[in-house]
Amino acid sequence: MSNAPKNQEGQAIWSQDKEHFIHPYTDYATFKEEGSHVISEGSGNYLTDADGNRYLDTIAGLWCTNIGHGRTEMADAIAEQVMKMEYCNPFGHSTNEPGSVLAAKLAELAPGDLNHVFYTCGGSTANDAAIRLVHFYNNQRGKPNKKKIISRMDAYHGSTYIAANLTGIHGTKYSFDRIADEWVEHISPANMYRRPVGAEDLSEDAFCDFLVAEFENRILQLGPDNVAAFIAEPVMGAGGVLVAPKGYHRRMRDICTQYDMLYIADEVVTAFGRLGHWFASEAVYDCVPDIIVSAKGISSGYIPLGAAIISSKVYDVISQPQCEGGLLSMGFTYSGHPVACAAALKNIEIIEREKLNENVQALTPYFYELANGLMDISVVGDVRGSHFMMAIEFVTDRRDKVSFPAEADISNRIYQHCLARGMIIRPLGNQIVLSPPLTLTQDDVERLFTVLRESILAAWNDINEAGLLE
Amino acid sequence: MSNAPKNQEGQAIWSQDKEHFIHPYTDYATFKEEGSHVISEGSGNYLTDADGNRYLDTIAGLWCTNIGHGRTEMADAIAEQVMKMEYCNPFGHSTNEPGSVLAAKLAELAPGDLNHVFYTCGGSTANDAAIRLVHFYNNQRGKPNKKKIISRMDAYHGSTYIAANLTGIHGTKYSFDRIADEWVEHISPANMYRRPVGAEDLSEDAFCDFLVAEFENRILQLGPDNVAAFIAEPVMGAGGVLVAPKGYHRRMRDICTQYDMLYIADEVVTAFGRLGHWFASEAVYDCVPDIIVSAKGISSGYIPLGAAIISSKVYDVISQPQCEGGLLSMGFTYSGHPVACAAALKNIEIIEREKLNENVQALTPYFYELANGLMDISVVGDVRGSHFMMAIEFVTDRRDKVSFPAEADISNRIYQHCLARGMIIRPLGNQIVLSPPLTLTQDDVERLFTVLRESILAAWNDINEAGLLE
Repeated sequence: MSNAPKNQEGQAIWSQDKEHFIHPYTDYATFKEEGSHVISEGSGNYLTDADGNRYLDTIAGLWCTNIGHGRTEMADAIAEQVMKMEYCNPFGHSTNEPGSVLAAKLAELAPGDLNHVFYTCGGSTANDAAIRLVHFYNNQRGKPNKKKIISRMDAYHGSTYIAANLTGIHGTKYSFDRIADEWVEHISPANMYRRPVGAEDLSEDAFCDFLVAEFENRILQLGPDNVAAFIAEPVMGAGGVLVAPKGYHRRMRDICTQYDMLYIADEVVTAFGRLGHWFASEAVYDCVPDIIVSAKGISSGYIPLGAAIISSKVYDVISQPQCEGGLLSMGFTYSGHPVACAAALKNIEIIEREKLNENVQALTPYFYELANGLMDISVVGDVRGSHFMMAIEFVTDRRDKVSFPAEADISNRIYQHCLARGMIIRPLGNQIVLSPPLTLTQDDVERLFTVLRESILAAWNDINEAGLLE
Repeated sequence: MSNAPKNQEGQAIWSQDKEHFIHPYTDYATFKEEGSHVISEGSGNYLTDADGNRYLDTIAGLWCTNIGHGRTEMADAIAEQVMKMEYCNPFGHSTNEPGSVLAAKLAELAPGDLNHVFYTCGGSTANDAAIRLVHFYNNQRGKPNKKKIISRMDAYHGSTYIAANLTGIHGTKYSFDRIADEWVEHISPANMYRRPVGAEDLSEDAFCDFLVAEFENRILQLGPDNVAAFIAEPVMGAGGVLVAPKGYHRRMRDICTQYDMLYIADEVVTAFGRLGHWFASEAVYDCVPDIIVSAKGISSGYIPLGAAIISSKVYDVISQPQCEGGLLSMGFTYSGHPVACAAALKNIEIIEREKLNENVQALTPYFYELANGLMDISVVGDVRGSHFMMAIEFVTDRRDKVSFPAEADISNRIYQHCLARGMIIRPLGNQIVLSPPLTLTQDDVERLFTVLRESILAAWNDINEAGLLE
């Protein structure tokens, strides 16, 4: 089925896209025929396509447009900074105003002694930079062997060569090369729904013990002198919105402290209100990391921006000159880009002024009440998440948690039915993901779950009618 | 010496910067005392600092603001796109208008069959992605051992973990870890001024033979079946603006073709007018690469944007589904960001309308006439470059090319004298670098070299008075 718009102007764009734009995570089994759905306009919680169809955007672009789409106030702040000064060199001893003011603001909002900001243009590069800095840190401390990074299966940490290899999602590995296997390790995800062998029937507390023990055992096996850091999303995002058992992050943090390791929190998705707070680590999970990685919500995606926010403990080591004439020789042309930082400052001002963290907290009970209501549909296997981050997993057998076969294409069918009803969700294997703008209203929530219920039932009906489960 | 502004508001920003902003390539031997020079405003070819001092910007931000600073027309185009739609999901089968239109435009401007655009937010990630795609390409072709990348000493390819290791500048390696040594190789730079042992007295043609032979020998030594690609800047930038001997790039291209290797041209600096053409590879060097990496001038730095532009030959392989359900599983949240792409489209329109490529070509003779005039100063060892990309190297003895001792700090002294005279240049070891906006006027050129001459003489005088060469 072609995604070509009905009008000529839209078709021209659709063709240009299909011929020239290499999209992230494209399925080339179908792309060259279907092309892309052309999205043209965004306003508030809604997107409009090239044919004028309007959609409730329940995924906030891609976990990022936290303040909603197309804000005039953002356009004004961005244009003002462009006219004042769109760019100057941030290298060495030269700076710009928005980059400096934002760094101070981030230090104020971040927990503990996370007071120093290394800027990038997104989450992948912020994770990539965090790892380079961790290695540099241990070289500076005279611990050149302490380099291994422990990540988790099903983690998503981005798409630079290194970030892709920190990522633990099996499906992202096909035909790509691995790298740095000598220092990247993966342990079990904190997946309450699908547990590792031996942990199926444990209580939440006992499962937490299980995961913490696995972590500590891996450190001991590798040798604590060889292990530099643990990297984890507070709630796993692309891995399926996995909420860890209670106390997990705090205990993993304590293990890191015990073995002189750094805890890196990848808050690319969870920060800036998605879990109802500026950062989730301490506020939600009682865990103060050594490094917080941020992107997406930091600028609500209006202008690309990422940041690795570093503790004073780490900064004090990496900011020692390592040799005569030696610089901290890393960084990007666009580190602390003035326009991106001006956008982030305005974005933070809007989140504060409109009390969007509070809106998320206030709407969360209703959001989960309606979501859990979907459990009366037999194919809904699990509803999980935290605040405005949710996944719904579909199964053909709830007791045995049997996944739909790939050819049933359950999440894409639901996606298509939602589209037809004026709503964009995110299909992800046997799950769908919701991560709406923080500006969602109670009416939007009601509409969201009404459309979703209809779409799940319609998809389930299609699959039955096509006999795909027989 | 502190960089603190004289006024209170400026001082507050200076403090916030010093306490919280981790700058690229910072010298921590001095930063904590001096802090940063706070640049506040930009207009045309000029920047203004927090104290109101105005500077001719001879480095275009950092090789990037090709159309000059603070353009209202850019602010308008950017604001318009923000209000229309600041962001939507580019993953899979979803697209936006500016990303699609720009991809088609880049395919039109790029040479040969370079028709497919993988977007990032800067040069580092575009190089990083190019390497991942090259490896994927060879896996798809059933050549899983063909993975080695040949780069050059003194090359600069960016600052992700992989990009930093493609980089061949020794000074960027202190205390950082190496990675991927099993597939990253470095050969000699095409440095006409400082040659490798055995090539000191060769003619330009014979030196070219020497370099091409070294390349081919390295390929044969590594085994052609193991070597995937060669990556090179048409003119080396941060390595010291090194212009290769005549015919070099074309011959390196031919060797790549001969051994079934890809040629990756890192045109982050050289494209979008810096060498008087949209891209330098074919127009200046008669070399059609398989992949061109672009950033900086593509958006004139107004909004972060990068792109790896891929040939149809490569695309046809990477766009084959590699397995059932397998996606091309790489890409970024901000791949093809609508606001960045809208900025790039307006930037290209301005370069076209104002004939900035032609301006560079027209001013180049005068630019080099005045630059070569500096050779009457005995410490000017070499003036080199191409079009609006120039380095001037300083020596204490021109015949033996003896570098200044580090403690003489020659380029920083020249930089300070230029600042005092209202001009920003880029100091780089024993060199200074010029990469002005393409909007430079003949008057600007005259002013540039007048100030530079005074500053070189003043710095040289300081060094003599301080007895630093005794």
